[in-house]
Amino acid sequence: MTKPLFETIALIGIGLIGSSLARVIRAEGLAGHVAIATRSEATLEAARKLGLGDSYFSSNAEAVANADLVIVSVPVGASEAVAREIGPHLKPGAIVTDVGSTKASVVRQMQPHMPETVHFIPGHPIAGTEQSGPEAGFAQLFKGRWCILTPAADVDAQAVDRLAAFWGACGSTVERMDPDHHDMVLAIVSHLPHIIAYNIVGTADDLEAVTQSEVIKYSASGFRDFTRLAASDPVMWRDVCLHNKDAILEMLARFSEDLSSLQRAIRWGDGDKLFDLFTRTRGIRRSIIEAGQDTDAPDFGRNAGKADVPGAAE
Amino acid sequence: MTKPLFETIALIGIGLIGSSLARVIRAEGLAGHVAIATRSEATLEAARKLGLGDSYFSSNAEAVANADLVIVSVPVGASEAVAREIGPHLKPGAIVTDVGSTKASVVRQMQPHMPETVHFIPGHPIAGTEQSGPEAGFAQLFKGRWCILTPAADVDAQAVDRLAAFWGACGSTVERMDPDHHDMVLAIVSHLPHIIAYNIVGTADDLEAVTQSEVIKYSASGFRDFTRLAASDPVMWRDVCLHNKDAILEMLARFSEDLSSLQRAIRWGDGDKLFDLFTRTRGIRRSIIEAGQDTDAPDFGRNAGKADVPGAAE
Repeated sequence: MTKPLFETIALIGIGLIGSSLARVIRAEGLAGHVAIATRSEATLEAARKLGLGDSYFSSNAEAVANADLVIVSVPVGASEAVAREIGPHLKPGAIVTDVGSTKASVVRQMQPHMPETVHFIPGHPIAGTEQSGPEAGFAQLFKGRWCILTPAADVDAQAVDRLAAFWGACGSTVERMDPDHHDMVLAIVSHLPHIIAYNIVGTADDLEAVTQSEVIKYSASGFRDFTRLAASDPVMWRDVCLHNKDAILEMLARFSEDLSSLQRAIRWGDGDKLFDLFTRTRGIRRSIIEAGQDTDAPDFGRNAGKADVPGAAE
Repeated sequence: MTKPLFETIALIGIGLIGSSLARVIRAEGLAGHVAIATRSEATLEAARKLGLGDSYFSSNAEAVANADLVIVSVPVGASEAVAREIGPHLKPGAIVTDVGSTKASVVRQMQPHMPETVHFIPGHPIAGTEQSGPEAGFAQLFKGRWCILTPAADVDAQAVDRLAAFWGACGSTVERMDPDHHDMVLAIVSHLPHIIAYNIVGTADDLEAVTQSEVIKYSASGFRDFTRLAASDPVMWRDVCLHNKDAILEMLARFSEDLSSLQRAIRWGDGDKLFDLFTRTRGIRRSIIEAGQDTDAPDFGRNAGKADVPGAAE
């Protein structure tokens, strides 16, 4: 058996991402030992029952003591508390990374607590589902996906390559990016879509003229597509909104400006303008499918596994 | 063999909906003869190659001459022209229906051209995919879905029951509704979601700070969910926007009002307000899944048919 990439990996937080990491580390033999830590006793017990690691800690500090790689997978709002806890206990030469959906804020929160002797390399795997918790994870979550690393200019290049090799072994392709640019990119591809989805589901929930049972019955005509994102983890998304505020507010402003213009075209019956937009947007989906980032099956191939009935969702 | 529900069915328009009807009529033996008419010679030829009907016409008037059931499946903006063409040629006692996404406008356009001797019963199957054209149809499109009929008060009840039986045989459950209420319900469950999806894809397409290739690469983090609806047929959706203007503008106003309030909560760091909304919206998805209107597989079970890799879209 070949030597694993890391002797000991510590996973701080064992939700969808952390538990998917535990599974792929096991499946690919990427560590000699996996130490798992999480604040919630119930979650730690669930991880133990699932056999996700080799040792289990309710103290983050104890979990990182011997770790060569520490992966922090907590809501971004908890990053500073975790960094403060683990900072003094990190092994010299260790690589510390995270999986947070915002990067500039994570750097601000964690960097000050990282000793000179460790390599702090923020990261963000562009993967996930609307489900959460240790039971929701699976080893293939990162397969065919991108992982963005945002190392500072002075970080040891070999450490960055080693972390990149880890993500490569998880099935992802690694990109390096400036934290602020990452936050701008994610604001449009991830944060705005989630906020819009949460918002439209809230709007539908508040209607008087249309009952909730009508919204549910007829949701296959479009609405249901938004409800998946709107079922994502509320704590994670509250923190994303609070910690990528500037980029999100800029994207929201652009979105609202465009929507007002579209609304005006509808009010004044400008069919050509509507047709032009509705045509232009088709190309982007084609490109996403060609890039292997979505399926080309109708209705996302809903239930393709259960029956050969695209569009049917019984 | 039992007697089919209708001796002759005429399908005016043979796109996704029309061609799916042709397939389910054939599969379930719902007609003795299927006559197909469409304006485009190329589409008519495609339908012929697919063997979707028993006779093919480029004249709508000729196609309906002997039909006991006429189903008009064209963009709602073309309803009046079709009604004017077929009106004088309809067989006495025939049932005339449509599948348009807006109903009050279709009634305004078609009713004046319907002779007293026929039963005009507007309809709307709540089913579809982002794909279009005769090749995109499939017999199971209507299975497990709802179909809304909006007959006027004075329409023959037996004719309505007969049309309801037809949709039941297609696999759908029939609801009856007032046209204006239908238009209000669909504005929130279908029209607003499509408009929002088109708009956000347009916004992303216009960014300078983020390249289109970045949007495409990282779209699995949420954005891609919107691109499916934004790939829908531009002519159909232009017409929906123009023909359900009032209800759509009301829903857009409510959505924008809610979005401004959400935007303010983000600007001022009101985490509790964000958390409350992000929690409330989870319930609606659960109800949609319980109602059998969506899959509970992560990421809509994308590619569940191709590989047991939820979330992966290679």
